Amino acid sequence: MQQNGFHTFAQRWLPQVEAEMRALLSWEDPQVAPLYQMMAYHLGWVDQTFRPGDFPAGKRVRPLFCLMACEAVGGDPSKALPAAAGVELLHNFSLIHDDLQDGDETRRHRPTVWRLWGAAQAINVGDGMFALAYAALLQLAERGVPDGVVLQAVARFNQACQALTEGQYLDMRFEQQERVTVSEYMRMIRGKTASLIAASLALGGLLGGGRADQVEGLARFGESIGLAFQIRDDILGIWGDPGVTGKPVGNDILREKKSLPLLHALAHPRVGERLQRLLQEAVTPAGLPAIMALLEEAGSRPFAEQELVSLHQAGVRSLEEALGVHATSSPLMALADELLQRQA
Amino acid sequence: MQQNGFHTFAQRWLPQVEAEMRALLSWEDPQVAPLYQMMAYHLGWVDQTFRPGDFPAGKRVRPLFCLMACEAVGGDPSKALPAAAGVELLHNFSLIHDDLQDGDETRRHRPTVWRLWGAAQAINVGDGMFALAYAALLQLAERGVPDGVVLQAVARFNQACQALTEGQYLDMRFEQQERVTVSEYMRMIRGKTASLIAASLALGGLLGGGRADQVEGLARFGESIGLAFQIRDDILGIWGDPGVTGKPVGNDILREKKSLPLLHALAHPRVGERLQRLLQEAVTPAGLPAIMALLEEAGSRPFAEQELVSLHQAGVRSLEEALGVHATSSPLMALADELLQRQA
Repeated sequence: MQQNGFHTFAQRWLPQVEAEMRALLSWEDPQVAPLYQMMAYHLGWVDQTFRPGDFPAGKRVRPLFCLMACEAVGGDPSKALPAAAGVELLHNFSLIHDDLQDGDETRRHRPTVWRLWGAAQAINVGDGMFALAYAALLQLAERGVPDGVVLQAVARFNQACQALTEGQYLDMRFEQQERVTVSEYMRMIRGKTASLIAASLALGGLLGGGRADQVEGLARFGESIGLAFQIRDDILGIWGDPGVTGKPVGNDILREKKSLPLLHALAHPRVGERLQRLLQEAVTPAGLPAIMALLEEAGSRPFAEQELVSLHQAGVRSLEEALGVHATSSPLMALADELLQRQA
Repeated sequence: MQQNGFHTFAQRWLPQVEAEMRALLSWEDPQVAPLYQMMAYHLGWVDQTFRPGDFPAGKRVRPLFCLMACEAVGGDPSKALPAAAGVELLHNFSLIHDDLQDGDETRRHRPTVWRLWGAAQAINVGDGMFALAYAALLQLAERGVPDGVVLQAVARFNQACQALTEGQYLDMRFEQQERVTVSEYMRMIRGKTASLIAASLALGGLLGGGRADQVEGLARFGESIGLAFQIRDDILGIWGDPGVTGKPVGNDILREKKSLPLLHALAHPRVGERLQRLLQEAVTPAGLPAIMALLEEAGSRPFAEQELVSLHQAGVRSLEEALGVHATSSPLMALADELLQRQA
């Protein structure tokens, strides 16, 4: 029933989110059309020759959270459509730049923007989408949302943008940094992942006419779920089923990605030093079992799973504070559960 | 007297623009301090080890235009300080990304951000400054500017951001494109250079309480002066005095930069084809005189100078429409004149 509620909601509203984004990616001057077509490619609407198609485009989790939060406080989700489009555009701006920063050549089984059109254009395609994300938010003023509320929405959105770049800074610095603590790591994912999910929910609550305490409760729910979502990603990156994830077992260990389980094991009094020595040289598939055994010895998987459960519980409490008895039956809860139970 | 008015204004207000920007580049969490310190480096406030200093930082033309426009319509420039900070931060975001896109290793005699901290961090430093530029605009709401006016200001600013990325797209595409017409070129510099200068003036006029027709007149003045400013740059890039510009004669020809004079000559019925042949191979200093002779034959320098004069005149007319008899004595006119007469 919960699952059903969530999918019904998505089927009804996601086409409208797409329409809202499409309207922003239009152009008057044909000279600049390819700039917007490169964005459309990244969003899954056209192929690399700009012919229309229907390509994998991500789950649109942030707009869903935004629109559901709006409805959860008694608002009409259509009022929040510009904000839903804005958070999704911001998320995708960050992916375009992230792919370039990480040197990732594919995303959702297609070549990344920088791989097709070069680094310089990819930077600018991201920048253009960043500007369009604000343009989306500013559309609220055209839909009868009072000026003061639009400004609050833009300010909240702006804080998330800033937090996102802070998280991204930390993520890239950690790659160069020998020791990263669990608490530094949590700070990083709070900026890089949780802040925009929190903002998506807060914007929905605000535009739905929620009380200030409801808006803050929704934001805390979003932050907890965002953090838990990232930790779920970290667990799957090491112990995910290759048949489902499409990536080898221990993939994040082979990439020496400083994700939560690895940082936990490195900080472990008995295991840390031995693990550090194994990581000093490049990790090969042959060296993987020894590292996995150390993670096992440190209890890093149960640690991460316990963190995830605690964050999920904290999120549920925040949602109950915001919505009272309606929290459990809300599609927000169903979407959060789905995100945290996914296998890939 | 005009020059004097402009310098007095700058001496009085530029320290306050710097203070406004400094307040935005602060951080609560010491972990993310280096992100803001990299921004401070680019802005000329610290050296590459983040020790405070006073380094060349650009002319702050956009904030000056913004604050002068505010005063010109009878407003208190201090009301427009957040907007002045915002346009300067946006300009500098675009420079950080531009340096990386062009592979430029120095700016204002110092290594560029990407040269010091790598491409990935430089992208993110720019992104962070982009977010801070909007944060600057949003400060207007804290200074007693009515919500509706703040929203108008943010919307105008957002349009300029979008135009900037369109201009940047065209600039990069022109490098790959065999034929670029003069009108395509004008479209590019309208986005890349003129739109933000126009917005700087419009924001000042808006925040100074100017009438709608004054705001539009100031924007048109800014657009004309911005276009003229870029053409002045193009002329100096080819015929500038090396003793003043610090660059060799014909520098933009050696770089095969598709600036206005070169595009004019390429479109010239008698000269175009011969010039095209000379440009098919890499231009060397030995090959330069032949190309310069073709530009001379095509009359490309007088053409560019005439464009500059026409744009300047159009700008003056727009300023007169906006300010009436006060236009001539306005420091806006003095600043525009200074920009268009500079030798480097």
